[in-house]
Amino acid sequence: MPSRASAAPAYVYAPELGAEGSELTLSESESHYVAHVCRARLDETLDCTDGQGRVATLRVTTLGRAVRGRVERVVSHERRRPAWLLCGTPEGKRDDWMVEKLAELGVGHWTPVTCERGDWDAGPRVRERWERLAIAALRQSRSAFRMAIDSPIPLRDAVAPLPRDSVRWLAEPAGEPPIVSGEVRSLAAVIGPAGGLTDAEREWLGGEGFQAVSLGASRLRAETAAVAMASIWCAAG
Amino acid sequence: MPSRASAAPAYVYAPELGAEGSELTLSESESHYVAHVCRARLDETLDCTDGQGRVATLRVTTLGRAVRGRVERVVSHERRRPAWLLCGTPEGKRDDWMVEKLAELGVGHWTPVTCERGDWDAGPRVRERWERLAIAALRQSRSAFRMAIDSPIPLRDAVAPLPRDSVRWLAEPAGEPPIVSGEVRSLAAVIGPAGGLTDAEREWLGGEGFQAVSLGASRLRAETAAVAMASIWCAAG
Repeated sequence: MPSRASAAPAYVYAPELGAEGSELTLSESESHYVAHVCRARLDETLDCTDGQGRVATLRVTTLGRAVRGRVERVVSHERRRPAWLLCGTPEGKRDDWMVEKLAELGVGHWTPVTCERGDWDAGPRVRERWERLAIAALRQSRSAFRMAIDSPIPLRDAVAPLPRDSVRWLAEPAGEPPIVSGEVRSLAAVIGPAGGLTDAEREWLGGEGFQAVSLGASRLRAETAAVAMASIWCAAG
Repeated sequence: MPSRASAAPAYVYAPELGAEGSELTLSESESHYVAHVCRARLDETLDCTDGQGRVATLRVTTLGRAVRGRVERVVSHERRRPAWLLCGTPEGKRDDWMVEKLAELGVGHWTPVTCERGDWDAGPRVRERWERLAIAALRQSRSAFRMAIDSPIPLRDAVAPLPRDSVRWLAEPAGEPPIVSGEVRSLAAVIGPAGGLTDAEREWLGGEGFQAVSLGASRLRAETAAVAMASIWCAAG
């Protein structure tokens, strides 16, 4: 076999990633991926991230049920533009792929919000699944940042902690085109639930500085609107 | 029950939609939707499209296994900006939701393309499923246009019939931002397969006028890149 630049095509996720020169033991699932899916060999290197902006080269020192390696080089990245996406409930079981795609598209912070016309039914098992999907997407997309996922909270409580200087958008058919100018420091957007936001919710959001932007002429499902918004953010860098 | 503006929240699909004043018999599946899902009543109206740009108000005259109605008013729409999306193979069984989302986002023409690193395995049953998904998305998104779906063909054969004056894009991490200016008359884009395009394919596309545009810093799956491109087109109107 020719030598490979990296033994794994995806990033390895290691939240406990230490400093250069330190030793690292991968989790059982990451060890399985490295040893059995990628069939890494001793002394090969992997790209590894802590999901908080640090990406390291890891040289494999031990193979087996627990793969170990030495951290050789760490590069720290900073999020260019923090972003919060507040999403109402989609129809049916469409939350899984929404989470996968939003994480893949590099959304920084995803908050499932309870609205008058939609209440999340997301217990610990659902939230654990979302976390697993977000980590899988981080690995696949070779991103230095893991999407942060909140527990479902009421819309108003989700808006309160957002930075005051964020550009604030509300996805609405009659809105303006969603253009991210170079000066935008951070972004926040609300996607209503499948049943739509109420007039009272819209009005309240307007008072909180949320401007209506249109994702196009199509009537989009809630989860499609969320992914479309994330796509526009992603392309804007 | 209060009277409803339309008895069905989604569009009814009727490819044989005739002129104003004509009678129309809906297909079995559309009849089921109207009579049993929406529980339409006699004399109520439905919004109905032929998927070719015409949207009609249909007044229900007969209920039952075959629902019939009278075409009362027809409005013809024109596609603002025709668009062709040429897509290589995604990994696994991700084509279904790609088709659903591209149709929902209003892509005009979807062409699955065979590339050096990806061959579509799409027999008649798969293509029928794609058609059903495209029709379901048309209904759901209340669009006047049904996404046209080609049978899989080689990349070079798919490029040949594209209009010469289309803006031509190739999704590439190192490309320019994908900005659709107001003057753009029609759009075409190539999304490579999960395994990527070869250098030879990229070079050939460059010679055919395809410019590299970047969908962002994330490494996107093939189907995510397709949906992201469609989202940007949709938001541009």
